[in-house]
Amino acid sequence: MLKGIPALINADLLYILRSMGHGDVLALVDRNFPAQSVAFDTASGTLVHLDGANIPQAAAAILTLYPLDSFVETPVFRMQVVGEPETLLDVHEDFHAACEAAEGAKVRMGSIERHSFYDRARQAFAVVQTTEDRPYGCFLLTKGVVFEPT
Amino acid sequence: MLKGIPALINADLLYILRSMGHGDVLALVDRNFPAQSVAFDTASGTLVHLDGANIPQAAAAILTLYPLDSFVETPVFRMQVVGEPETLLDVHEDFHAACEAAEGAKVRMGSIERHSFYDRARQAFAVVQTTEDRPYGCFLLTKGVVFEPT
Repeated sequence: MLKGIPALINADLLYILRSMGHGDVLALVDRNFPAQSVAFDTASGTLVHLDGANIPQAAAAILTLYPLDSFVETPVFRMQVVGEPETLLDVHEDFHAACEAAEGAKVRMGSIERHSFYDRARQAFAVVQTTEDRPYGCFLLTKGVVFEPT
Repeated sequence: MLKGIPALINADLLYILRSMGHGDVLALVDRNFPAQSVAFDTASGTLVHLDGANIPQAAAAILTLYPLDSFVETPVFRMQVVGEPETLLDVHEDFHAACEAAEGAKVRMGSIERHSFYDRARQAFAVVQTTEDRPYGCFLLTKGVVFEPT
């Protein structure tokens, strides 16, 4: 354990989050996502497991440390429901609320069709898989900048 | 970069600090310390370089995250000056001040003879080497507990 770091953020995840820079993308996914096969293709080749955590828990923990990109219009994307691209599920709303709570500001969330989402996730830096049991609980988060001197 | 994490704490060091548990020991050393040969023998076998940082900078950054052990009388030790075990150098005082500032309390700092220090460092979890140029700027820090829920 470390002071001020959510217990959910294990050493492997900390390593990934700190290794990423501005514009890199993290894939945060549910339990059904083909996380390992997609992760093999990512920049780091890494899948981090957050077993026991759902999407709202994982998002809240990660976003205490991880700045969302303010240089782009749409720093986060959700996976679209197949055949219903406009449908916003509870898991999407929960994730969006976690983003806006962490940023203290409105955050624009885009959406991507399922197979295109897989392609975009393969171009991410790494994949973090929760055990979220609600389908379509899959997101892409573009990393931003820490402006304050630390 | 991550929100609230000192820039000095790189991904490798974050990984080590988060991997450690209660009672594990971190060796934080100056530029002359035989860091790599000692690190080979540590539990993790890892040497992390903090090039460009001195001991006060490294200690202050690490101790924002790393709790010192409150279960033992002496959570930190310094390397003794050869032939002058009682001599407290500026680098020792600077480190001690960083510990007490971070903990917000008195911290007891012990001392260990040079060759015994090497032996103890080999039993540590990992070695972190700064580019501190003052001799005897070598310390052992026992990790404590985070009591607050996170």
